Amino acid sequence: MLIVQKYGGSSLGSADHVKNVARKIQRTVEQGHQVVVVVSAMGDNTDDLLELATKLSVNPSARELDQLLSTGETQSSALMAMTLEHFGVPAKSFSGRQAGIITSYDYGKARIEQVDPRELRNALAVGITPVVAGYQGVTRSGDVATLGRGGSDLTAIAIANALGADRCEIYSDVAGVYTADPRIIPAASPLGMLNYDEMLELSSQGAQVLQTQAVEFARGQQVPIYARSTFTDEPGTIIREGKKESVEKPPVTAIALNRHIAKVGLIGVPDAPGVAALLFQELGESGINVELIIQALSHNQLNDIAFTIEEDDVEAAEPIVQRCLEKLGGNALSIDTQVAKVSAIGSGMLGRPGVAARVFKALANGHINIQMIGTSEIKISCIIDRDDAERAMRLIHEEFHLGQSQEMIED
Amino acid sequence: MLIVQKYGGSSLGSADHVKNVARKIQRTVEQGHQVVVVVSAMGDNTDDLLELATKLSVNPSARELDQLLSTGETQSSALMAMTLEHFGVPAKSFSGRQAGIITSYDYGKARIEQVDPRELRNALAVGITPVVAGYQGVTRSGDVATLGRGGSDLTAIAIANALGADRCEIYSDVAGVYTADPRIIPAASPLGMLNYDEMLELSSQGAQVLQTQAVEFARGQQVPIYARSTFTDEPGTIIREGKKESVEKPPVTAIALNRHIAKVGLIGVPDAPGVAALLFQELGESGINVELIIQALSHNQLNDIAFTIEEDDVEAAEPIVQRCLEKLGGNALSIDTQVAKVSAIGSGMLGRPGVAARVFKALANGHINIQMIGTSEIKISCIIDRDDAERAMRLIHEEFHLGQSQEMIED
Repeated sequence: MLIVQKYGGSSLGSADHVKNVARKIQRTVEQGHQVVVVVSAMGDNTDDLLELATKLSVNPSARELDQLLSTGETQSSALMAMTLEHFGVPAKSFSGRQAGIITSYDYGKARIEQVDPRELRNALAVGITPVVAGYQGVTRSGDVATLGRGGSDLTAIAIANALGADRCEIYSDVAGVYTADPRIIPAASPLGMLNYDEMLELSSQGAQVLQTQAVEFARGQQVPIYARSTFTDEPGTIIREGKKESVEKPPVTAIALNRHIAKVGLIGVPDAPGVAALLFQELGESGINVELIIQALSHNQLNDIAFTIEEDDVEAAEPIVQRCLEKLGGNALSIDTQVAKVSAIGSGMLGRPGVAARVFKALANGHINIQMIGTSEIKISCIIDRDDAERAMRLIHEEFHLGQSQEMIED
Repeated sequence: MLIVQKYGGSSLGSADHVKNVARKIQRTVEQGHQVVVVVSAMGDNTDDLLELATKLSVNPSARELDQLLSTGETQSSALMAMTLEHFGVPAKSFSGRQAGIITSYDYGKARIEQVDPRELRNALAVGITPVVAGYQGVTRSGDVATLGRGGSDLTAIAIANALGADRCEIYSDVAGVYTADPRIIPAASPLGMLNYDEMLELSSQGAQVLQTQAVEFARGQQVPIYARSTFTDEPGTIIREGKKESVEKPPVTAIALNRHIAKVGLIGVPDAPGVAALLFQELGESGINVELIIQALSHNQLNDIAFTIEEDDVEAAEPIVQRCLEKLGGNALSIDTQVAKVSAIGSGMLGRPGVAARVFKALANGHINIQMIGTSEIKISCIIDRDDAERAMRLIHEEFHLGQSQEMIED
């Protein structure tokens, strides 16, 4: 088989970690497989560089930041290649450029436009294991551009697709995807299989196993992903198209929690056309992502508007919302940073009524007040008090018997 | 003027150092000059990476080492570019590749084969100060190759030559070249001017102001070098062709000291043709550089052969010499690591007899025994006991009144 293996920063935190990963790669090669390795920067390397940059410039240019930050992955790839060679596995490091990865010009969050895998193929053809620096590529003008946090996942999946690899394995410090974060819900059980849509909802709702863009790319190109742990031999989770899914699939697959959101409320805004448009256009132009939106018609032709944003965006959003409120002649602005979002996700809820009601009832039985609700075809999100977050997660987890398989093992 | 300015690692040891250098560049730009900056890696960055590499591999491949070590300079260039921009100087970082530097395939000690300065010219034309990562280039196959220790000097001089710059300024933590190392001879005085040949002898005899290959390149292309201090505004030393030199030039310009050598002696080797050839060929093939050689015909057709090598090479040289000695049937091998080499250098000694005699007499007056002597047209080197090294330096320095200008200032 031709296998792409990606190892994240937590798997490469020290010289001993690097050796451990090299032994893992060696075993795969010795089983007769061809392997292309993709690596992130070692441990906190990227954060250290970022800290140094902010000491030197209040607002460093995105091009220079990318030129700087990409060196962490280049270092990892060279160190991994020499470690593999030390263990007798012929290897060669590739920067994003050398691996043929062409990106858009959006420094810091570039998209992969093209992968020319010729050099990687040439290496594989003569028995050399390529070790590619993740997270980076070059624009058509030859400048280095990075793919955003978690971008090494995207590198791995794009290379797997360009090479027509049999599988893409993403290694981290957790053994794949669980029904809920096991640090919060000890009864959470590992999931053997997920489809791309479920994984996308999970990633974008706060689960940090895989980068959202990487999952989107994998869905578009139908690249199967194996999310596994670097430190154990557990099978992990396969993410792939769910065409052959059993009709017996349970309605909810997993629960996600995002504690880093804030709720913004505008009270008593005149009910005139274009009010919401003005507000959300200005927020959008400032790069602030708005998620759930509720607009309630109250008395005297006055509206209340509430929406959620990332907590990190509060500082930037507040003056914009304040300005809009004054322009529109609203009554008051409220910002609540003590909320959390709990989401139940599962493609099994498609065409199955009553799933949302079960979520709401589980929370009501626990006396947890639901402040806002958002849904997609395969997701139900509830905004609740942050203090209730973990309890809410546990209640929904129990309602859908998600920990069952593990509980049975424990019996 | 178009000025190339190179800043070494000791000038870039911390965020504050980087800011200090950026201010210096800013002042030059604000004086109306065009500047191309070349930077080394920050402080001990390269050593730290090297240490990590040796933890992972006993014998890392030269290609991977170059891919790894070059990242230090790339980081410096991006950090310097963002600092300049923070100070309002439009700037852009260039890796060796982006600066158009094509090298030979000798990883770790590559030669610059070609510089294509188009991208640098394009930046200068629109008022952008290019900041080039020193020490690195790419081979014609696109692999990163480094130029050896001190290689950023060579980068600067090659770029100055390719751009037809008016001058190339090399900044370090010392204010140019002195008549002797001021840490050893406090009376040493700064030299205003040196020719390339003198600088070459000084560099290769142990003075660490400029990389030897860089001086050779500058001599070949007639690029004037200004060696100056990052931390003072002293004029420093100009290194250029000495065509217009005064005939009144003193016979000795400067004294160099190398304490890191060893003397190897083979006693009682048969006086047969090819003996020396065999020995020095085997040492050369192992990359061991032999400098001074003395072969003395002693009694009974037996020779004594003595030569000097770098102290670091003793471990590698000993088994080779031992094997040769056994093959030739010699009597004994002696290795003395308690020696030093003191060299008096000056193009003023050309065609002026008696200079060597003055050196020997100065040492004899100090009761210092000369074990070996080596000369070139503009250099006299003496191998002496290492304990006598500093005193020998001082004696020769005084004999040729080299500290005079400074002593006069001190009066």
